[in-house]
Amino acid sequence: MTPVPPIGEGELVRRATAVIPGGMYGHNVRKFLWDDAPQFWARGSGYLIWDADGREYVDLMCSWGPIIHGHQHPFVEAAAERQRRLFDTGNGPSELFVLLAERLIGLIDHAQWAVFAKNGGDVTTLALTVARAATSRSTVLVARGAYHGSLPWCSSRTAGVTAGDRAHIAYFDYNDPDDLRAVAARHANDLAAIILTPHKHEAGTDSEEVTPHFAASARSICDASGAALILDEVRTGFRLHLGSSWAALGIQPDLSCWSKGVANGYPLSTLTGSEWLRDAAARVSIGGTFWMSAVPMAAALATIDLLEQEGGVTRMAEAGTQITDALRATALEHDVAVRISGPPAMPYLSFSDDPGWSIAKRWAAEMARRGVYVNPSHNWFMSTALNAAAIARVSEAAGGAFRAVASYRG
Amino acid sequence: MTPVPPIGEGELVRRATAVIPGGMYGHNVRKFLWDDAPQFWARGSGYLIWDADGREYVDLMCSWGPIIHGHQHPFVEAAAERQRRLFDTGNGPSELFVLLAERLIGLIDHAQWAVFAKNGGDVTTLALTVARAATSRSTVLVARGAYHGSLPWCSSRTAGVTAGDRAHIAYFDYNDPDDLRAVAARHANDLAAIILTPHKHEAGTDSEEVTPHFAASARSICDASGAALILDEVRTGFRLHLGSSWAALGIQPDLSCWSKGVANGYPLSTLTGSEWLRDAAARVSIGGTFWMSAVPMAAALATIDLLEQEGGVTRMAEAGTQITDALRATALEHDVAVRISGPPAMPYLSFSDDPGWSIAKRWAAEMARRGVYVNPSHNWFMSTALNAAAIARVSEAAGGAFRAVASYRG
Repeated sequence: MTPVPPIGEGELVRRATAVIPGGMYGHNVRKFLWDDAPQFWARGSGYLIWDADGREYVDLMCSWGPIIHGHQHPFVEAAAERQRRLFDTGNGPSELFVLLAERLIGLIDHAQWAVFAKNGGDVTTLALTVARAATSRSTVLVARGAYHGSLPWCSSRTAGVTAGDRAHIAYFDYNDPDDLRAVAARHANDLAAIILTPHKHEAGTDSEEVTPHFAASARSICDASGAALILDEVRTGFRLHLGSSWAALGIQPDLSCWSKGVANGYPLSTLTGSEWLRDAAARVSIGGTFWMSAVPMAAALATIDLLEQEGGVTRMAEAGTQITDALRATALEHDVAVRISGPPAMPYLSFSDDPGWSIAKRWAAEMARRGVYVNPSHNWFMSTALNAAAIARVSEAAGGAFRAVASYRG
Repeated sequence: MTPVPPIGEGELVRRATAVIPGGMYGHNVRKFLWDDAPQFWARGSGYLIWDADGREYVDLMCSWGPIIHGHQHPFVEAAAERQRRLFDTGNGPSELFVLLAERLIGLIDHAQWAVFAKNGGDVTTLALTVARAATSRSTVLVARGAYHGSLPWCSSRTAGVTAGDRAHIAYFDYNDPDDLRAVAARHANDLAAIILTPHKHEAGTDSEEVTPHFAASARSICDASGAALILDEVRTGFRLHLGSSWAALGIQPDLSCWSKGVANGYPLSTLTGSEWLRDAAARVSIGGTFWMSAVPMAAALATIDLLEQEGGVTRMAEAGTQITDALRATALEHDVAVRISGPPAMPYLSFSDDPGWSIAKRWAAEMARRGVYVNPSHNWFMSTALNAAAIARVSEAAGGAFRAVASYRG
């Protein structure tokens, strides 16, 4: 087969306009990026990525989370390839279905069972359904502005969403235990679940750690009412901890939702649950054409093995700490006021007095020009592939980017 | 790495009971199968599959649809592998995103745009959302008993489903134009869409071709009211036609949903739409972590190329015709009354006077014992891999299986 030359960004953008509504959807919509930001990609290897025009970048977005060991990690790819030679999507699961469920239950304290799906939104939705089936109640409390997927009950856009889709959802403010208690009290007779991300990490705003008091309040409201506490670890899982993010607080959820980091880029999500929800999970509808596919499960087992063997969580936290320390120092040097929030492996950088993220976009553009890919209004994701050379490239790019931004503001 | 010996069906079933709610979910739940049916699988190649105990079967289920060219087809796998060496899940799409959208629009008459996701249910749900956004109405008409995915608005089980989930759904009987008109009239001021499978193919009952009059009625109701006609081709697409299933009737939908057969086992789904729905599609929430992954798109392009080059749709229909002809003849020979319904590439076999599918289960068990895997209460799926040798094995197995069933009844 004759290799076909790549098409390139400009032509792809033009042709996409004809065949994709709005030319693009999701994270790569132009308004979330800078003017000449790449929207199409050509290749990834370790901590490096190349866009459709062949420009190279250090990847600090990691495919919006899934890439935890760097692109094309040989250990993960070898495990996936071994399973691929047997089968991927079959008439039922492979033995890895059981092995992975056992492995997850061993890692996640509260978990007594697991089911698998594809999207993060599959398992957040399933968590609500299981909680509702177990409690015979309907109302679920959701933090205002939190992202739990793109389905009508939780999407950030509301076009095409009906009244029914959110009829049994009530909203509270994250980290406000009084508000949470008040909203829970209003729905006392119908409270099925509270769903929370382990820390506040929605796009466009600074991240915020959960306060121990708020986390404990959520737990105690659920205990008192018989509702389920759902932890949405889709973005945090396997990057910040091996196991539940709230284990350090001594708080266990009843259901937890995982995806992104679990299989280093292979499509997989999983819902894990406590014993009292097992019967409900057996009663609800669970099924999707690719939900039992074996290759992503092989990749997940290898991803977890590697995290354990190489202290991956610590390494991602260290890389993130070095990078964010360097960014803070460089910003200060150029007299640019920045805030860096969130855990080091999932940092969020913002500029003071920056409506519409216009400074953040300029800065991200300057970083891209210098070979580092970050997003201006979404948290970044560290990987275990980030070594000293990668971190040095980030620091050097940041010097130039902050200088450029300082001169714009000058 | 030392190869680990396979665990085997018996131990897997035992261990699954501890870690999976009910021990299994989806199609492979024991109650849908016969007593000693395999639930775990080891390998697939061409038209052959092997269960976790190493027993070999001719595969007539094709992973519930995705496998259209047989397992591990070298042409599809080579295309997937070429893309895998570049990247799969990245920060955005590869050029294949545009190439595949262009290809689909070329194949599907009504389609002017495409978006991609993972599950069939992602795109049926998205179709409803797009139709609702475009019409500023909420009500969607769904055929009673039809399956459009496992989400709360459409799942076959209702545990954990809230009143809100189905607040804007109304039901009609498939192939009953008067009922459809009456239900549409009751919701005249709020009709956003009608969603239909191209023929009636829900599990557990004989399949039924759509009547031209019913299809035309659905189209004219939508035309008169400004609602969108959605064709759910998740099960039929790329197996029965290259392009819309209703093209032969001269009826075009406004939105069509595709998955399963499009990428020969790689996880992908797509929603394609007509021009008037493009703006709405650009306004709704569309996004999932793995929705732009490039490897399944490479597999899809290869799957479609192969279907075209090898006349795959005709071949599947021919294989299905030979198999169903042989089954009918063999059943008659053993004086067993069977009905075979549905298009030849997606046949459904049922026995007269068979409540609870108990004869069907016995027959499927006898087929399995003779090396052919079929499901007793769900349509089967043909693949282009089924050659004369495979068809001969099915015919021979059927002889023994019908004889055995005749003797049970006898």
